[in-house]
Amino acid sequence: MFAQHTAPDTPDTAPRLPRGFRDLSPAHTQLREELIQKAIAVCRNRGLVPLSTPCVEYLDILTKSGSEETRQQTFHVTGPDGESLGLRYELTMSLARHIAEHRNLMLPFSRYQYGPVWRADKPGPARFREFFQFDFDVVGAASELADAEIIALQYDILAAFGFEPVIHLSSRGVLNRLLDYAFIPQDLGPSVFRVLDKRDKIGFFNVRRELADGYVDSSGAKIPGVGLTRRQIARLQAFLDIRGSERADVIAQIRDVLRNVHGASEEIDSLERVSNELAEHGYGDDRVVIDVSVVRGLEYYTGSIFEVVVPGTHDSGACGGGGRYDSLLRKFLGHDVPAVGASIGVDRVIAALDYPAGRNATARVLVTNFDPAFTSDYVKMTWDLRRGGIAAELYMGSEQSIGRQLKYANHRGVPLVVICGSDERANGTVTLKNMLAGQMLAAGAGVRGEWLALRAGEMEVKREDLVTSAARLLQEIGQPA
Amino acid sequence: MFAQHTAPDTPDTAPRLPRGFRDLSPAHTQLREELIQKAIAVCRNRGLVPLSTPCVEYLDILTKSGSEETRQQTFHVTGPDGESLGLRYELTMSLARHIAEHRNLMLPFSRYQYGPVWRADKPGPARFREFFQFDFDVVGAASELADAEIIALQYDILAAFGFEPVIHLSSRGVLNRLLDYAFIPQDLGPSVFRVLDKRDKIGFFNVRRELADGYVDSSGAKIPGVGLTRRQIARLQAFLDIRGSERADVIAQIRDVLRNVHGASEEIDSLERVSNELAEHGYGDDRVVIDVSVVRGLEYYTGSIFEVVVPGTHDSGACGGGGRYDSLLRKFLGHDVPAVGASIGVDRVIAALDYPAGRNATARVLVTNFDPAFTSDYVKMTWDLRRGGIAAELYMGSEQSIGRQLKYANHRGVPLVVICGSDERANGTVTLKNMLAGQMLAAGAGVRGEWLALRAGEMEVKREDLVTSAARLLQEIGQPA
Repeated sequence: MFAQHTAPDTPDTAPRLPRGFRDLSPAHTQLREELIQKAIAVCRNRGLVPLSTPCVEYLDILTKSGSEETRQQTFHVTGPDGESLGLRYELTMSLARHIAEHRNLMLPFSRYQYGPVWRADKPGPARFREFFQFDFDVVGAASELADAEIIALQYDILAAFGFEPVIHLSSRGVLNRLLDYAFIPQDLGPSVFRVLDKRDKIGFFNVRRELADGYVDSSGAKIPGVGLTRRQIARLQAFLDIRGSERADVIAQIRDVLRNVHGASEEIDSLERVSNELAEHGYGDDRVVIDVSVVRGLEYYTGSIFEVVVPGTHDSGACGGGGRYDSLLRKFLGHDVPAVGASIGVDRVIAALDYPAGRNATARVLVTNFDPAFTSDYVKMTWDLRRGGIAAELYMGSEQSIGRQLKYANHRGVPLVVICGSDERANGTVTLKNMLAGQMLAAGAGVRGEWLALRAGEMEVKREDLVTSAARLLQEIGQPA
Repeated sequence: MFAQHTAPDTPDTAPRLPRGFRDLSPAHTQLREELIQKAIAVCRNRGLVPLSTPCVEYLDILTKSGSEETRQQTFHVTGPDGESLGLRYELTMSLARHIAEHRNLMLPFSRYQYGPVWRADKPGPARFREFFQFDFDVVGAASELADAEIIALQYDILAAFGFEPVIHLSSRGVLNRLLDYAFIPQDLGPSVFRVLDKRDKIGFFNVRRELADGYVDSSGAKIPGVGLTRRQIARLQAFLDIRGSERADVIAQIRDVLRNVHGASEEIDSLERVSNELAEHGYGDDRVVIDVSVVRGLEYYTGSIFEVVVPGTHDSGACGGGGRYDSLLRKFLGHDVPAVGASIGVDRVIAALDYPAGRNATARVLVTNFDPAFTSDYVKMTWDLRRGGIAAELYMGSEQSIGRQLKYANHRGVPLVVICGSDERANGTVTLKNMLAGQMLAAGAGVRGEWLALRAGEMEVKREDLVTSAARLLQEIGQPA
């Protein structure tokens, strides 16, 4: 009745999304909303404040971390004044830019931030070009207290999501001394760490070949080597063989291997202080292990580095990680500013863990609307429920048949339906239909549900009791408002 | 101690944001989080589900609404495969694309969505190139029930924000018939409505000049005219003079002016049904007025159109609006799909209304950390507070002096500080300092606060009572955990 034109046209644009982009279903989006609320609650409990920076920044700032990957994978945006802009690759560079821009900001500054980031990466099953990250950082605290704080936050947020995470902790400072131990020049560090970081993906056999002279992979592509000697690789290997379930024991082994390396003991002392602070905070060997194989891809780390492992995940690294990056601000300010932070890939957590998706419907009750003479009654019932704190939807579509409206409720996953035809109206009643009755019957639901299932999940209640009856029924079928 | 390099460098990149972009402060961001949670709660109460679509889409889809403004103001993005992409201008086109792409989606589909949108508009005091919108739409419902549902949602979300909004309702369907009444060809409609939409900005005197032959504005720029005759403008004026505080009365006046126009009565009937449904839903003349001067800029509207006015706002239109757009899906599907929706500019609500910003700190307590011998005690106190449900921050910065740490708490707006030096430690106590004491004294705070103010806001409590004492104190000074 509102349409200006009714003759069919030939559509000229196919509705579609670019490769690597996707819509998230209502169930996924609800779950994401809930996870983010949980993460916010943990961060606020620790006194972190939220900061919001734009998704679009100058390209030279976004690619300032200096890694080739960041430069290649940043989406370019053209501004109206011809500026060279981009979509943020992650949230850390924007935090650094914010801190550098506001020089009289009092430090430490501890903030959380969440939102989409973009990477022009090769799309894969759980890899998208736009995805949500949740970050938390402390800027301006050189103390290992801050490392422990961030690691505890990382643990607690994933625990709030319902997981039993284990944090794998290492130190870029120690790894830099490992290079000396293995007679590898410091400037080869980024290449060596980039290859070591692929261990989970390509296996240590291929890592060794890539560290040496390279190899030809299964697709026939030539992977160039870093050019290390067998002796250098053997020394790396000796270090990477260190493992143990107790942090104190692993630290002792690291001390032993690097005992003659200049500057190593300071870095190991610092790692030990992080470990001791974690113990003080209540994070023992069951929650945090020292794992020397953690190297982290990003170049800007300078101290602690860590990743989260969640048992049952099929996409390692999805649950996030972080580290200390004391030199990142130097790019803007010319001097170091101590900083440590971490990131959780919220969408990847959901995808990688086959996290059970939330319920699809938000409505607990659908009020059917099949007799035009009673529409204003249906409207009133809907509002009575809503004002009584029960999420309720009035059917507003074009289907007149009650059967099709029930099908709609079923498809959406609304657990309870209100039906009011001429019989009910004459009796001053309404019928409540439990949409889960069939499913409860099949599952052999307990005593409380039995009487419902026997009556095919339907019961007639007085019109004036609609709200209280609906609330009670939702409670009984385990779908509280 | 983690830094690899300590010699100062010359920074080569100035930290800065592109024109029209900004960071939001912790206070603003907290407020936005709270407003969005309120809006979500209202939407869920009505049974709307969240949907998430990407910020990046194909450019031809984003600019499909056909308006010149949308084409000019959409940010361009270059994809890694050379695709022509853009940043979404608003959320409605993405919803339309989603519906068209999933043809077997059961309708009606009612969703809410929020997130950033981008416009390469001329930046102004409350106008940014990236800002947050909160949208809600019902797709697949031709009934005026859906118009009433969306208008009620718009009202209730702003009421949940603490405002007393008034919805100004009009109808694009009626306005299209007004063109016939004024002997204006239908294809001039978009130009005429675009000019009428500027009434608040340029005044009706200039609107008349622009509808006629154009004029030279105060900056000396030549504004071209639409070319209407005086008679055409007089007829528009006769209609636009309609006003009244009761919807039934305004509808009667509209009927009278357009009484001889073919097709007008059907459109007026529909507007009347929306008005009647709103009355059924409990939205009377005090909440929704019919205002024929509302025309809405976007071209895709076909039926109801409306805007929100909040008394006290200094940026009209900031609080949002919406309407029915039955023909938008035709661009993808070749046929109409009934739809109605609305949008709230969350950041613009905050800016335009001088909405009081939220508190800056999330921490309710700062545990000072000034004696290195006691650090593990300070850590333990912090965690006792956190685990007791009180958001607490441990000072982790480089300042050793208690005075500077108090300055930090004051700057951040943390209301309570814990101090534990050697005296307290010897006594088995801690000192709680009310950072608001001075301010409470100055404001002549009541009886309950008096004893605090007398002791300069400090009190010593037993160490084992820290959590309960802090909770009680926060309650007393009106800063509950």
